Amino acid sequence: MDDRRYVITLSCPDTTGIVARIAGFLADAGGWIVEAAYHSEPATGWFFTRQVVRADSLPFDADELRERFTEVAAEIGPDTRWSVTDTAVPKRAVVLVSKETHCLHDLLGRASSGELPVRLEAVVGNHASLAGIVQAHGVPFHHVPFPVAGDPRREAGKVEAFEKVRQAVDAHSPDAIVLARFMQVLPAHLCERWAGRALNIHHSFLPSFAGARPYHQAYTRGVKLIGATCHYVTADLDAGPIVEQDVIRVDHGDTADDMVRRGRDIERLVLSRGLRWHLEDRILVHGNKTVVFR
Amino acid sequence: MDDRRYVITLSCPDTTGIVARIAGFLADAGGWIVEAAYHSEPATGWFFTRQVVRADSLPFDADELRERFTEVAAEIGPDTRWSVTDTAVPKRAVVLVSKETHCLHDLLGRASSGELPVRLEAVVGNHASLAGIVQAHGVPFHHVPFPVAGDPRREAGKVEAFEKVRQAVDAHSPDAIVLARFMQVLPAHLCERWAGRALNIHHSFLPSFAGARPYHQAYTRGVKLIGATCHYVTADLDAGPIVEQDVIRVDHGDTADDMVRRGRDIERLVLSRGLRWHLEDRILVHGNKTVVFR
Amino acid sequence: MDDRRYVITLSCPDTTGIVARIAGFLADAGGWIVEAAYHSEPATGWFFTRQVVRADSLPFDADELRERFTEVAAEIGPDTRWSVTDTAVPKRAVVLVSKETHCLHDLLGRASSGELPVRLEAVVGNHASLAGIVQAHGVPFHHVPFPVAGDPRREAGKVEAFEKVRQAVDAHSPDAIVLARFMQVLPAHLCERWAGRALNIHHSFLPSFAGARPYHQAYTRGVKLIGATCHYVTADLDAGPIVEQDVIRVDHGDTADDMVRRGRDIERLVLSRGLRWHLEDRILVHGNKTVVFR
Amino acid sequence: MDDRRYVITLSCPDTTGIVARIAGFLADAGGWIVEAAYHSEPATGWFFTRQVVRADSLPFDADELRERFTEVAAEIGPDTRWSVTDTAVPKRAVVLVSKETHCLHDLLGRASSGELPVRLEAVVGNHASLAGIVQAHGVPFHHVPFPVAGDPRREAGKVEAFEKVRQAVDAHSPDAIVLARFMQVLPAHLCERWAGRALNIHHSFLPSFAGARPYHQAYTRGVKLIGATCHYVTADLDAGPIVEQDVIRVDHGDTADDMVRRGRDIERLVLSRGLRWHLEDRILVHGNKTVVFR
Repeated sequence: MDDRRYVITLSCPDTTGIVARIAGFLADAGGWIVEAAYHSEPATGWFFTRQVVRADSLPFDADELRERFTEVAAEIGPDTRWSVTDTAVPKRAVVLVSKETHCLHDLLGRASSGELPVRLEAVVGNHASLAGIVQAHGVPFHHVPFPVAGDPRREAGKVEAFEKVRQAVDAHSPDAIVLARFMQVLPAHLCERWAGRALNIHHSFLPSFAGARPYHQAYTRGVKLIGATCHYVTADLDAGPIVEQDVIRVDHGDTADDMVRRGRDIERLVLSRGLRWHLEDRILVHGNKTVVFR
Repeated sequence: MDDRRYVITLSCPDTTGIVARIAGFLADAGGWIVEAAYHSEPATGWFFTRQVVRADSLPFDADELRERFTEVAAEIGPDTRWSVTDTAVPKRAVVLVSKETHCLHDLLGRASSGELPVRLEAVVGNHASLAGIVQAHGVPFHHVPFPVAGDPRREAGKVEAFEKVRQAVDAHSPDAIVLARFMQVLPAHLCERWAGRALNIHHSFLPSFAGARPYHQAYTRGVKLIGATCHYVTADLDAGPIVEQDVIRVDHGDTADDMVRRGRDIERLVLSRGLRWHLEDRILVHGNKTVVFR
Repeated sequence: MDDRRYVITLSCPDTTGIVARIAGFLADAGGWIVEAAYHSEPATGWFFTRQVVRADSLPFDADELRERFTEVAAEIGPDTRWSVTDTAVPKRAVVLVSKETHCLHDLLGRASSGELPVRLEAVVGNHASLAGIVQAHGVPFHHVPFPVAGDPRREAGKVEAFEKVRQAVDAHSPDAIVLARFMQVLPAHLCERWAGRALNIHHSFLPSFAGARPYHQAYTRGVKLIGATCHYVTADLDAGPIVEQDVIRVDHGDTADDMVRRGRDIERLVLSRGLRWHLEDRILVHGNKTVVFR
Repeated sequence: MDDRRYVITLSCPDTTGIVARIAGFLADAGGWIVEAAYHSEPATGWFFTRQVVRADSLPFDADELRERFTEVAAEIGPDTRWSVTDTAVPKRAVVLVSKETHCLHDLLGRASSGELPVRLEAVVGNHASLAGIVQAHGVPFHHVPFPVAGDPRREAGKVEAFEKVRQAVDAHSPDAIVLARFMQVLPAHLCERWAGRALNIHHSFLPSFAGARPYHQAYTRGVKLIGATCHYVTADLDAGPIVEQDVIRVDHGDTADDMVRRGRDIERLVLSRGLRWHLEDRILVHGNKTVVFR
């Protein structure tokens, strides 16, 4: 069997007949649906779907599918948002990283072994020491130093550094920009520019312990579970639409440093899951919430 | 909004156009789909769906829906299996229990508080001491003693006891027969009679530790997690289609008795989840496996 | 083997020789330690231990053990806090409940089957309808109605109701006062009076979603896990020392009502675990944090 | 505070006074215990302890501690097994790997970022393509090809290959030999030689699905959770003492290939946890079971 698939996602105000309209269109064209998921949100009256069709079951290519589907979407209604992607076109990502490297190592390993369906186009980091390993994985490394605390030109330096980051990222027009424990707060214009493509991993179970040093906050409060959150980046810090979360049990024997170490296991998992779902077009954002068709 | 729903489940050999056929039928009748789930099984080439429609969106009742859907199903193909249920008709269950009462207490509490969508028609047990509490919940209790080990008439006594159990159960034609730590092995003719309706909770993570005293087996092997399995009862002991499983962490400090106690938390959860899904028509059985549209 | 045990807990500023002092005392008396746990907290410089000794290994009874241990504790230092309990003396609890009854049903089932080592002395509730089932479990039920919103005498009525609750509780001098989804905020003087004995279950993963309607807050934020927290009651609402927490996965298909329902499974588990540990003297409170020797 | 620690582990037949003897010895020398864990196994009558002492609190070094502790251990009894390790002496490991590289990538990342307290001395693999990345992490790579199925000299070739593996491993006298999805069955003489040092990761929740292709077995049986097991290697395949296990939820939508992919997340976690505990002397083996002082 041919593995090539077209992935259709669509969201719109809910009404009767949407499923019939889409399914009818695909059936008429002979489309073989291998995965289909639907969600109706009663609170908002909004409808979401993701459908995966065998490419070889359709008598036309992805471009013509898009063209024909434009008509279907228009019939469904003027507020319909949709996309069609082709699994034969590899998804591409750029990773931003600082000195905490565990998520980067994890993503390199997953990309390298083919486990994660992604082409890593570049890694941008402010520590040159990572260059060797990144390049051994066949991925270009861009060293962009950020000004340190106390630097009199810090604000101006940050603006310049972010401009370099932007160039390094935009050169690839990536499908995903992954903030893999990138310790700099993205300026609003980049949040805007990369909206819906930039994924961050926050090292707490949001909304608990937003902001700095979440594991130390967790230690002080004496919680019995610590967690991590993967979310889309928005200008509102740590408050973007949540994609995935998970937790791990801690106890009185764990110091704040133990929590930092143990939390890495959850950060790696949560980020790599969130990224996979993003790359596979499984996430539909609506308002500040996500529908994730896992 | 009216809460009444019709739940349609269907499975059949996979082909193109099934979704379109069902969705088209519903759209033509004005049906408002509030939940829809699909699954295609590549290994078997089989297709499964569950759809939930607002009753007040259709211009006809459940009986007419069944009548009209018979035609749709026939068009889809001769091997199509389907059902239509009406959430206005409460599902009914009979619970079988022995001396381990934690699952029974849990089900009584869940039914009593309205959390589980079920009408408990009867509890059948071999310990009369349970009668008081069962009846306080407004549920009839049938005391059916089973012959003990060493009884010379044991086999004949068992046959008689099971005949009483059968009568107590069949008097209600229940949608579910729940073996809530019922320690007797159901005879083959009852497995057959109640096929697809009898749910058992086994106190291990099957296929590990099938048979007797699973927690003691787990203790001896030194596993680090113990579990429970909810499955449909078949004549092949502990080998029926698995509906739900879960586990809990144990460590060297847990004796076999600790495992027995701690395992109860998982047994309660796994059985009540499995029973809920059964009552909500979320489980489609195919061969020895289940599709669970949670 | 005799099952009777003496349970010693002790906490004090950390220094060398504490373990040796306690272990030496027990060894000299022939004490057979069956469980021992230690914890040193580097951040506070405080030491904690719990030891379980076979009663039949000591040549004296619990009272004399307490007398002799007073000396050991005094030698360790003036800030030493300790307790000795005897497992032959059953722990007693009173449960406070409102209209959400799932935790109450769960505790009744666990006490009734002997799974939880507790004698339920009384249930205090503001809905008379619970009386039948509580009494079927052999537990007295006290009906204490609380004034409803809009009642002009509401504040005075609350004061009177809480005085009745206090009397019903204090009549038993219970080891544990369990707020099993008791929807009233305990007044400060009762928090004070029952300090270290009153356990509450909060239906969120604190510190997220403290206060009212946590599941609705969780739904609005779009989190992917919901949880529950068992904590000691203090005058600072939802901010007492955390004893236990757990979470359950939710997704976009779960409405706020689904979260309410699904959260009950976690509330039951978390409360019953926390209560067990409290009854088994496994929890040592220090400041606003707990050491839990599971 | 100095971070150097001495770690004492001890197991012996249980009796009164063991804790007092050890604690008394340490207290007399001024030893500051920062972690202490005890376990008494009623089923076997065996006692286990692990104690961590601040090196700077003792007036002598690790060698003298060992010398003095020899006497303590002898007094406790002739069957006493014990060890003293010094955290200033880094633990060293050799990793064996085949074509599934996810565990190797994970270990390289963890060692590289300092998260795992280990010095990777060498990686031995039968695919030369790994050399580049391993060496970029500063770790030597030994390529030892194994004969493939169908090779007429397969048995002899295997013997030779294993001899090369043995030499590559023994050259480092490592504290841990990590079979990171090493697909060859270790011959009995190597199991014997590396007893207590060789850790394997098996890709199922043992004892379920021992042997080949466990994910495919899991798929066929229709289980709802899949898992992984880290265990010490013994001559009895997949039956050595279990160190750690964990599971992940799967459903009807997961093919056997999906399970292979998703299981990797659990394999990575379970292996890295087991290895950490081994390196930190947290695991005491007794018979075919482990005591893990986490």
